Amino acid sequence: METPCLVMDADLMEANLHTLQAAVNRAGKALRPHAKSHRCSRIAHRQVQVGAVGICVAKLREAEVLALSGITDILLTGPVADSTRLQRVPALLERAPHLMLVLDSHETARILHQSLAAHNRSLDILIDLDVGLHRTGIPPCDAVSFARALAAFPTLRLRGIQAYAGQVQHIRAFEERRTASLTCMKEAGQTFESLRRQYPACTIFTGGGTGTFDIDIEIPALTDLQAGSYALMDADYRTVQSRGCLTPTHTFTPPLRLLTTVIGTHHPSHVTVDAGLKTMYRDGASPVPAEPEWSHLSYEWFGDEYGRLLTPPGTRRPRCGDRISLYVSHCDPTVNLFDAFNMIRAGSPAETWPIDLRGCSQ
Amino acid sequence: METPCLVMDADLMEANLHTLQAAVNRAGKALRPHAKSHRCSRIAHRQVQVGAVGICVAKLREAEVLALSGITDILLTGPVADSTRLQRVPALLERAPHLMLVLDSHETARILHQSLAAHNRSLDILIDLDVGLHRTGIPPCDAVSFARALAAFPTLRLRGIQAYAGQVQHIRAFEERRTASLTCMKEAGQTFESLRRQYPACTIFTGGGTGTFDIDIEIPALTDLQAGSYALMDADYRTVQSRGCLTPTHTFTPPLRLLTTVIGTHHPSHVTVDAGLKTMYRDGASPVPAEPEWSHLSYEWFGDEYGRLLTPPGTRRPRCGDRISLYVSHCDPTVNLFDAFNMIRAGSPAETWPIDLRGCSQ
Repeated sequence: METPCLVMDADLMEANLHTLQAAVNRAGKALRPHAKSHRCSRIAHRQVQVGAVGICVAKLREAEVLALSGITDILLTGPVADSTRLQRVPALLERAPHLMLVLDSHETARILHQSLAAHNRSLDILIDLDVGLHRTGIPPCDAVSFARALAAFPTLRLRGIQAYAGQVQHIRAFEERRTASLTCMKEAGQTFESLRRQYPACTIFTGGGTGTFDIDIEIPALTDLQAGSYALMDADYRTVQSRGCLTPTHTFTPPLRLLTTVIGTHHPSHVTVDAGLKTMYRDGASPVPAEPEWSHLSYEWFGDEYGRLLTPPGTRRPRCGDRISLYVSHCDPTVNLFDAFNMIRAGSPAETWPIDLRGCSQ
Repeated sequence: METPCLVMDADLMEANLHTLQAAVNRAGKALRPHAKSHRCSRIAHRQVQVGAVGICVAKLREAEVLALSGITDILLTGPVADSTRLQRVPALLERAPHLMLVLDSHETARILHQSLAAHNRSLDILIDLDVGLHRTGIPPCDAVSFARALAAFPTLRLRGIQAYAGQVQHIRAFEERRTASLTCMKEAGQTFESLRRQYPACTIFTGGGTGTFDIDIEIPALTDLQAGSYALMDADYRTVQSRGCLTPTHTFTPPLRLLTTVIGTHHPSHVTVDAGLKTMYRDGASPVPAEPEWSHLSYEWFGDEYGRLLTPPGTRRPRCGDRISLYVSHCDPTVNLFDAFNMIRAGSPAETWPIDLRGCSQ
């Protein structure tokens, strides 16, 4: 393996897939994992095999590549806002017959309906609710009137709501995060109940993430969870506290690491490694050495191509050519910097898995 | 053009190539532009056609792809530290006969020599000097003894020194930056003069960057400049002051922009756009709207896939579907997020140029 490169412990990743699926099953909910984190259709297929009801993606091009790989149940969680792209939905439906889109605009609904009608197709849709992030979605109080307006478009089958509280996922303290998430989701739950009474086909209330998985699956109205990072984990999620526990979360053991090589040892204060901004996205907590023998080193950014590992006086120093692996800062945008995961099984290098949704940000 | 995507004004980029080449020519120096910024062999070929003596790259894989495109004069500015990779140098020399490597380690020199000798090849090399960045390189005071040691390896032809003061390129105030750069480069210049007296083939003193181009080309000993960002520019370099001028630099007009679409207008304080962390690398100054009509909007990060443009009360608001282009935060790692530049000529979309060195970080 030529460094810098991504390595993934396949056994730990499998364990994470099973851990969350089991927790969701126990709560009587469904899991619809988000592929925006791993951007890898092979992982998506594993998630479906382990029990997921479908896969979420953020962008239309991600959905198209995932559909090509054979995933048929895809939820596109970001509203598609331009008419050119909406024209591609009927073709995508051919490959992914259980495709769902979210809607937060009457105009988009109108264009989508025209496009579907022209191809004699219909589509499941969810209303995208804004539960405080203020990024996309309509306020919960507008959902019932929006649902009524959607009835004018017979190609659109209203199936429920999406409510994603992205702003609470990384709140460090568990109780604070729990209160914030439950507050956000409460009004969404009430909206869902109102809709369900009027529209019996409304059976989906999807939302949540890795940071709130064990909070959100206790919300009675929620039907499915959209967590993504749990499969890979990263240095930032390691600083988010677990339920009843003041130490970093250990529910999901991080399988993803960035392998780097020491290329400079001329200075007593640090060694230089070959991984910088271009191979680990700087966002949130700093990268952390994964090997216990190097836990006394701390990573600092050192330009586009380099990093430095601070070597405290009197501690063991890496030598030139040594390989050290790091938990990355933020998994989603870091994975997007590479074309493949180098899989590790039982501690040994195995096959590579293509990151085939890399760059599919349109 | 499907958003988010990179657009490049080909005319402005050409102007930047000519502006720097002319400045370097006037100073009697050579230009050896750094391809780590644009990662595009077509731009590298244009730089050579405009007058560059060669092209710099940071990593071996960048050199290999650039050589495949037909560039024969390549300087690899980052030391190659592992023996496996050093074995690939003879094959690279076949394609790029004027390849140069930098060295900062006797052990690397020994392995490189063995590899070259086994293939009956020889190679131009530069001594990598550490002029205060402490990332790679040896202290200038050690250069003469290192040069003497290199004489034991007859396949390595010592051609000069490299001194890159990365730590001073983004100092905002011109005079402060000038003093810092001249201080760093002074000892390197003296070292170069000493080496040149002993080794007549030592004719190259390469260094500098976009932030110090007009400072470094006035250093008598410097022979060539390694600037990279000047071709593309970004929001961060726009905040670096020019000589004798307290406003942002206007020496190089930014040709690179990120085209984004407004996808959400539900909130009075902002609109949501489809470009976030995954399509603009967050590093340094915030992205800035490029169109004068949208200069009253300010960009804020809004997750992996989204951004928001703050809309001050009483100002014109973009509508859903509007396209707005942004000067990106930091060009180098942002370019690495895409597979192509969408070229614009005379204001109209033209061909795409592949970013064929994307992901070549090994």
